Amino acid sequence: MSAPVRIAVLAGGVGGARFLRGLREAAARRWPDGDGGTTAAITAIVNTGDDAWLAGLRITPDLDSILYTLAGVNDEQRGWGRVGETERVSAELAEYGIGWPWFTLGDLDLGTHIARTSMLRDGLPLSAASARIHSRWPLGVTLLPMTDDEVETHVEVDDPESPDPDQRIRTMHFQEWWTRYRASLPARRFVQQGIETATPAPGVLETIEAADVILLAPSNPVVSIGTILNVPGIRAALSRGAGRVIGVSPIIDGSVVRGMADACLTAIGVATSASAVALHYGARIAGGLLDGWLVDSADNQAVESLAAAGIATVARPLWMVDLEKSAAIADAALELGLRAR
Amino acid sequence: MSAPVRIAVLAGGVGGARFLRGLREAAARRWPDGDGGTTAAITAIVNTGDDAWLAGLRITPDLDSILYTLAGVNDEQRGWGRVGETERVSAELAEYGIGWPWFTLGDLDLGTHIARTSMLRDGLPLSAASARIHSRWPLGVTLLPMTDDEVETHVEVDDPESPDPDQRIRTMHFQEWWTRYRASLPARRFVQQGIETATPAPGVLETIEAADVILLAPSNPVVSIGTILNVPGIRAALSRGAGRVIGVSPIIDGSVVRGMADACLTAIGVATSASAVALHYGARIAGGLLDGWLVDSADNQAVESLAAAGIATVARPLWMVDLEKSAAIADAALELGLRAR
Repeated sequence: MSAPVRIAVLAGGVGGARFLRGLREAAARRWPDGDGGTTAAITAIVNTGDDAWLAGLRITPDLDSILYTLAGVNDEQRGWGRVGETERVSAELAEYGIGWPWFTLGDLDLGTHIARTSMLRDGLPLSAASARIHSRWPLGVTLLPMTDDEVETHVEVDDPESPDPDQRIRTMHFQEWWTRYRASLPARRFVQQGIETATPAPGVLETIEAADVILLAPSNPVVSIGTILNVPGIRAALSRGAGRVIGVSPIIDGSVVRGMADACLTAIGVATSASAVALHYGARIAGGLLDGWLVDSADNQAVESLAAAGIATVARPLWMVDLEKSAAIADAALELGLRAR
Repeated sequence: MSAPVRIAVLAGGVGGARFLRGLREAAARRWPDGDGGTTAAITAIVNTGDDAWLAGLRITPDLDSILYTLAGVNDEQRGWGRVGETERVSAELAEYGIGWPWFTLGDLDLGTHIARTSMLRDGLPLSAASARIHSRWPLGVTLLPMTDDEVETHVEVDDPESPDPDQRIRTMHFQEWWTRYRASLPARRFVQQGIETATPAPGVLETIEAADVILLAPSNPVVSIGTILNVPGIRAALSRGAGRVIGVSPIIDGSVVRGMADACLTAIGVATSASAVALHYGARIAGGLLDGWLVDSADNQAVESLAAAGIATVARPLWMVDLEKSAAIADAALELGLRAR
């Protein structure tokens, strides 16, 4: 019996969740374990830069989006949170003036937040608390937070309403910018507070270094994948690892697949195109990250120029509209990643 | 216009809540403000010895029982918690193995706990956090925690199952003894952890000293009223104050009005009778607390002997079966307290 294939994935929230669900399915078909699962070992390294303290509770939106999706308890219609959710506690919190009125915490979701926070307050690191929470469901994927340290993405925006012309920069938590303002306030820059001193969570570097293939999910290249890559040590582990690094474009035909990644790309001076994001990550042979890149069939024209830049690129349908399509995308990424170098 | 009558009440949970609701009504009749309320200033000093950290949240059962009852949102049928309560979050916590399985936290109730804990984590003392929470409803009564410090009543019980004969004492939080074991394990003693270094919350001593009358609600004499009295400074303030101190018996005809106070009295060697509890508090003229004492009509035989011991005692129906009865009891206590000394 050969050793299981080891797959590492860098992932953000909802896009990462759908991709991982497809990957789990693709792996179960390629390497079936005879029991509906896979012999492949899939480990996701998840962005925690969107995390926040809210109403005294530690919220980890990306970990939870992936958890709920892989557990099959996510709300497919709404696109986030738990299915069958209610908001009785949130209504009470609003009466007491606690929390963010524009960020509703569902009752079932609050169960997760309270459990996590209780463990954190007891001294468990986030990775251990998450592992305990994840053990509730058979996920088929190991989820690791990128770091146990508190890293929070904040956004600097122009504040034209400030009375003091020298004070026209306002800083807010990423969640406020993203959820409250729907990324409509032009971002000057993103500040990942605490990232300089953050260390990768236990297992993160080992997972990357031991992986046969490393996939970048079609998540936000700036505030999801970009934040993970900024944790000291992670980028170097990707360069050092023997596994091929394959990314999946979150941009299709010049538009974002979901969310408002274009606003984030604009802030860092990267065009909203599949090509520009690939070149932002960079070709591994030129000191960047990517061995390969998946673009949508609509971006077929990018294949040749990216290949010329040293990034093996293939075009496939990239809309993750259902499990079958997501599995096909993940399978194409695996195909590219496992191709002999 | 004369200064408002100032009434201070020492109170525990459900018994204290019903008594305070009756007192608010009695005061509105004696000293109406023309708007359905009262010109009297009623301040309750509430036991916090039943408080606990549970699932990372600070639970204050007595403060909340009184809050919900005075706000009119309590569950009269069940006798505790919020009316219309659900337990969706609790079911999630159980799945994660967080919390006490024998202590269910309702969803609406959790809103209060999360709000309170959030404020405490932000550095607010309990008295300030409570005041913010209480401001949601017009209560007509000011509720002060006895202390801002964490005092928790623990119970020492025999543990006959211990393999080591020298280790047959087990200590548990009062809530576990009371709620999980329904006080069925004989208590060796009660330990109020943290009480030696606790200080009365802001306003507590001032309230007692300035009061025209001080009432001891028919709450548990050991773990509710007894705990309040053990906060350093409170007993002395009662002795020092000009206001008469009137207690209402929580024992009727040798039985507890509600709860399992008999198990607590037994542990401290006090008989379960209206007389014994009065003598446990002691006559103020003999260095104890009480100027006056209300017993149930069924305990009429105790009136003379207690009077002889220096405690002015009257017998009245003491079952707080409805608002009218509770108001009559409170009014009798006021009558006794405001009688010229």
